[in-house]
Amino acid sequence: MIHFECDYACGAHPAVMKALVETNSEQHCGYSEDERCDIARQMIRDMCHCPDAAVHFVVGGTQANLLVIEAGLRSFEGVLCADTGHINVHETGAVEATGHKVLPLPSVDGKIRADQVRQAVMLHREDASFEHIVRPAMVYVSHPTEIGTLYTKDELTALSDTCHELGLRLFVDGARLGYGLAADESVDLPFLAKVCDAFYIGGTKCGLLFGEAIVITEPSLQDCFRYHMKQRGAMLAKGRLLGVQFEAMFRDNLYVEASRKANRQAQQIKQAFVDKGYPLFCDTIANQVFIVLPNDVVAALQQKYVITYWGKVDDAHAAVRLVTSVCTRDEDVEALLKDITAL
Amino acid sequence: MIHFECDYACGAHPAVMKALVETNSEQHCGYSEDERCDIARQMIRDMCHCPDAAVHFVVGGTQANLLVIEAGLRSFEGVLCADTGHINVHETGAVEATGHKVLPLPSVDGKIRADQVRQAVMLHREDASFEHIVRPAMVYVSHPTEIGTLYTKDELTALSDTCHELGLRLFVDGARLGYGLAADESVDLPFLAKVCDAFYIGGTKCGLLFGEAIVITEPSLQDCFRYHMKQRGAMLAKGRLLGVQFEAMFRDNLYVEASRKANRQAQQIKQAFVDKGYPLFCDTIANQVFIVLPNDVVAALQQKYVITYWGKVDDAHAAVRLVTSVCTRDEDVEALLKDITAL
Amino acid sequence: MIHFECDYACGAHPAVMKALVETNSEQHCGYSEDERCDIARQMIRDMCHCPDAAVHFVVGGTQANLLVIEAGLRSFEGVLCADTGHINVHETGAVEATGHKVLPLPSVDGKIRADQVRQAVMLHREDASFEHIVRPAMVYVSHPTEIGTLYTKDELTALSDTCHELGLRLFVDGARLGYGLAADESVDLPFLAKVCDAFYIGGTKCGLLFGEAIVITEPSLQDCFRYHMKQRGAMLAKGRLLGVQFEAMFRDNLYVEASRKANRQAQQIKQAFVDKGYPLFCDTIANQVFIVLPNDVVAALQQKYVITYWGKVDDAHAAVRLVTSVCTRDEDVEALLKDITAL
Amino acid sequence: MIHFECDYACGAHPAVMKALVETNSEQHCGYSEDERCDIARQMIRDMCHCPDAAVHFVVGGTQANLLVIEAGLRSFEGVLCADTGHINVHETGAVEATGHKVLPLPSVDGKIRADQVRQAVMLHREDASFEHIVRPAMVYVSHPTEIGTLYTKDELTALSDTCHELGLRLFVDGARLGYGLAADESVDLPFLAKVCDAFYIGGTKCGLLFGEAIVITEPSLQDCFRYHMKQRGAMLAKGRLLGVQFEAMFRDNLYVEASRKANRQAQQIKQAFVDKGYPLFCDTIANQVFIVLPNDVVAALQQKYVITYWGKVDDAHAAVRLVTSVCTRDEDVEALLKDITAL
Repeated sequence: MIHFECDYACGAHPAVMKALVETNSEQHCGYSEDERCDIARQMIRDMCHCPDAAVHFVVGGTQANLLVIEAGLRSFEGVLCADTGHINVHETGAVEATGHKVLPLPSVDGKIRADQVRQAVMLHREDASFEHIVRPAMVYVSHPTEIGTLYTKDELTALSDTCHELGLRLFVDGARLGYGLAADESVDLPFLAKVCDAFYIGGTKCGLLFGEAIVITEPSLQDCFRYHMKQRGAMLAKGRLLGVQFEAMFRDNLYVEASRKANRQAQQIKQAFVDKGYPLFCDTIANQVFIVLPNDVVAALQQKYVITYWGKVDDAHAAVRLVTSVCTRDEDVEALLKDITAL
Repeated sequence: MIHFECDYACGAHPAVMKALVETNSEQHCGYSEDERCDIARQMIRDMCHCPDAAVHFVVGGTQANLLVIEAGLRSFEGVLCADTGHINVHETGAVEATGHKVLPLPSVDGKIRADQVRQAVMLHREDASFEHIVRPAMVYVSHPTEIGTLYTKDELTALSDTCHELGLRLFVDGARLGYGLAADESVDLPFLAKVCDAFYIGGTKCGLLFGEAIVITEPSLQDCFRYHMKQRGAMLAKGRLLGVQFEAMFRDNLYVEASRKANRQAQQIKQAFVDKGYPLFCDTIANQVFIVLPNDVVAALQQKYVITYWGKVDDAHAAVRLVTSVCTRDEDVEALLKDITAL
Repeated sequence: MIHFECDYACGAHPAVMKALVETNSEQHCGYSEDERCDIARQMIRDMCHCPDAAVHFVVGGTQANLLVIEAGLRSFEGVLCADTGHINVHETGAVEATGHKVLPLPSVDGKIRADQVRQAVMLHREDASFEHIVRPAMVYVSHPTEIGTLYTKDELTALSDTCHELGLRLFVDGARLGYGLAADESVDLPFLAKVCDAFYIGGTKCGLLFGEAIVITEPSLQDCFRYHMKQRGAMLAKGRLLGVQFEAMFRDNLYVEASRKANRQAQQIKQAFVDKGYPLFCDTIANQVFIVLPNDVVAALQQKYVITYWGKVDDAHAAVRLVTSVCTRDEDVEALLKDITAL
Repeated sequence: MIHFECDYACGAHPAVMKALVETNSEQHCGYSEDERCDIARQMIRDMCHCPDAAVHFVVGGTQANLLVIEAGLRSFEGVLCADTGHINVHETGAVEATGHKVLPLPSVDGKIRADQVRQAVMLHREDASFEHIVRPAMVYVSHPTEIGTLYTKDELTALSDTCHELGLRLFVDGARLGYGLAADESVDLPFLAKVCDAFYIGGTKCGLLFGEAIVITEPSLQDCFRYHMKQRGAMLAKGRLLGVQFEAMFRDNLYVEASRKANRQAQQIKQAFVDKGYPLFCDTIANQVFIVLPNDVVAALQQKYVITYWGKVDDAHAAVRLVTSVCTRDEDVEALLKDITAL
């Protein structure tokens, strides 16, 4: 079977594996206090044009999300997000397990808008019973979103302005950030560092074996973050592994270049489906393709490919998702393109 | 600098790295539902003589501890442990962050005894205000303990009998289990699987890049464990990495054999100090050495070696810890032995 | 000012105050383990035709809700409710603070239906990523609901059947249960005891100074409930006060009869508005009235009466709520009726 | 049976009951935002000579404790207290249920000293693994303590100075504060308001039906406290009841004067035992008496009196506790004195 169902089906990008092997016998102190992590942290600060950012490495995205959110909220505060947001639907209540309510806002394209945030905050403030209502204090967005869409620079700027005017923090989940950076270069790291209070640069889905780099620009959020990490089981003993991997992936802009190739593969797949007349479930320009297919076509593809069943459209059709990644092989894409053409 | 301060200063055992490289381009589904993990799980069940055990892989020890404890307790229940227990002193309150009280029992050698457990439970039961007191419902022990000591088979049997008679669960933290298994072969995996309700086989400190294998033998604890993992951010996306590493380390009994070598190195170091007349802080037979040294000797060693300052003994002396691991090189041990002799 | 904005503006029903004064110098042991509480508990079991029910008294509704929910859920489970449900909107995230996600279902009349529950459960079960999604394990409904509507016997039976078929628990928040019992006698205590796993009989809004009686019929939910109460700060030291008050209010069916009078007052107020041609915001038959009024009429009424601003309808109109209670005086109602007529 | 086992066996002081009856038909808005609470809050600020203090009323002591502690700590911080502290032993892990570790310090007289606090903080700060250890950030003491002892002015000043020098907050649990104020007038309300960041004035054990007045002098702790109250189920709907009761009890210094009488009764009882030659378990000057009695004497007393079994001293003797309160009747004390004399 050939996997197109997610962006973590393979191991790591060869450059990452090479670096892990080469540094394997080095001795380092633990918990990401080593020089390898220092190098990677400095690379990230440089790329972000943000010399004062705090950078922390964790193993996975749920850890990154729950840490930033619980560290950034007081007990009675909650986090606004799209109803399709990963923290709202696919983390088994990880945020609630830290005591905080997730406050979902309706979304059709995976994104939320500044005016939705303003309205939610105003509803709370103007309610005479405001103390009986969870106070919105952070906004969580994913870029790219869970359905592959991308925020524009203007949308993020508006969210940022609204958040900061109203005293909320803006946090961007960048689990697939590489694909986002490659697809729309207007939203780059320096821009994110400027508009967000915190964001994370996804590694697991973008070529690393595992790892996410949390970038915290807001000073009040930086304080004592490592205590939170340890308390939530998110401080890796051999922390150097995270530094080594990110360093390898950031050298020579590999992080973005490799993602660009994956985007290209995905767009080829999308085009092949479109050329055959199948409608898009939603249009995307990065590494995820959402397409509506007849049930029998889905079944036929599933003989050879692992793809994600996204939902029933009608009795005869389903939406499916296909995902490429930094590690997707050209020959697998070519096989798929040929099979689509032959459908 | 040569590191003897912990058992996670290096990367992985070469056999583990080799397996990771060889399997890197394989495609697998995520979250440890792949065949690599299946193989490793089956190896563990076989080694434990426990075909019905549930086996789950997580990245680190704090995750393993907090997961088993919070999954095994009701909200008002707590976990008994030695006052030196890792969960009580070195996990930033990770167990409390899940809502549960850690109930420390006094210990001089890192171990607790069955009669201490019985007494604690009886004190609770016989108190008229029992509903105002956290109910002890689990016992946590580390084997080897945090100060390198080992439970005997009889001690663990007594703990197990007492726990089960009184309705408590017994959980063994095996962060350094390899060294324990190599040092005293009477406490082996089938024995642990028999006396405990759950234990974990440490990987991070025993040759893996990262990873702990939680073995749950008690059926009521097995149910829905993966939900807990996901909720606490402890489900690795590329879960196959855990299966691949454990499989490599368990082949040909490498896990125990490589640990045995590390124990031997540690015992050589211990003997060298003893031969020089320095007193042991506490005696150990596995991979940790605790020794009392004059302050100037500590300072001299620290010019070349990273060792752990364990505590002040008097104005002129300190206790220090030296640790070997599966990855400790013979040349580093030899250098140290020479330097000790020359002190 | 005359208060019609809530059902807790006054103290207690005179019969309750009388009982508190008469028993004030009695000596009792604490924490509701006294004879007064025993008497009230037995009265409730008798009224419910449920000799095996566990009955616990707490001071307020948020306590009752969070206790039953956290005691009845495992860490990764959540509670389904109407999006207007009190636990979802007006308890400052009290349920989330115990670690559990509230799973809101859309509702226009404050009620949820059995098929919504079934659909939510099926969506979870049929999702390949079910372990990444909070598991629905309890249903919370309010009777009367937050907007004054009442479940029919059939609706509750269907919810109960669906819950029990699917392995969920049904919990009914009866903060205003007296008014519900008086308004539609088909849903009575024995019926509730039969269809629910737990419910609470509201005292605070129905004539007591404070107090809610939690009735747990499901045996597995009964176990150790008092530990939960103490842990959450919900065990009253002078617990006898709760027994004394409920006993007084249950004597001679006072609980329902006094509620019936309040319903009658509310219906008179509703009719007066309707007679003047003002539209209902939603129709109710118990003690809450929701009406749409021109803004100037709202302002005029607020000169003399405290009423609840419920929400803006359009630029010229607002929805308001008026509430009567067991303690509402006839002269206050008459004054209001006169003023409505004169509008 | 005559109760001497606790200070909440009776209802309220007659002055409190009178005030509740007299104000019963008043209409007030809910949640302690009414004029009655305003009056009581202002009385407390005046008595404390602290016009800027925030004053909040809750129903019980566990609520007061868990609220101040969880509102005052960040997730990874813990609270230092005596190992006999109420939060450590008799609240079913209420503090841990909010996610925070209780950090017990050894104590023989129920008190902890400034140097113990300093040492605990220094141990944390000087540990290289400080991020792996719960950070002490608050000190909890009870005055009077759980075993009836009283802090001196000097002891509290030293604790306060140490806390503030080291950046910790000092919180005083005043569940029995009335008896403390009456027994040693040097520690009065203005003094407490000056040395603590927060404390609470106990009502439940000092003449009210229920109620504790939390006084927060530290501005950063004042912010948003009512959100915490609502989230933890500690905001009373008919909040006016708390204002009414405290107002009644504070008029004409009744709170202290009535406590003084209870202290006198307790001291008479103590003296009677001493006169018979029975040794004190620990000496106290307020409303609790701890005495060592032969088992048969305990049994004889228990024929007529409810007293607290405090612990076994040896096979033939037990420590028992007798408690008087604001509501203890002279005739009951006289009966007991006669019976002691006749032993």
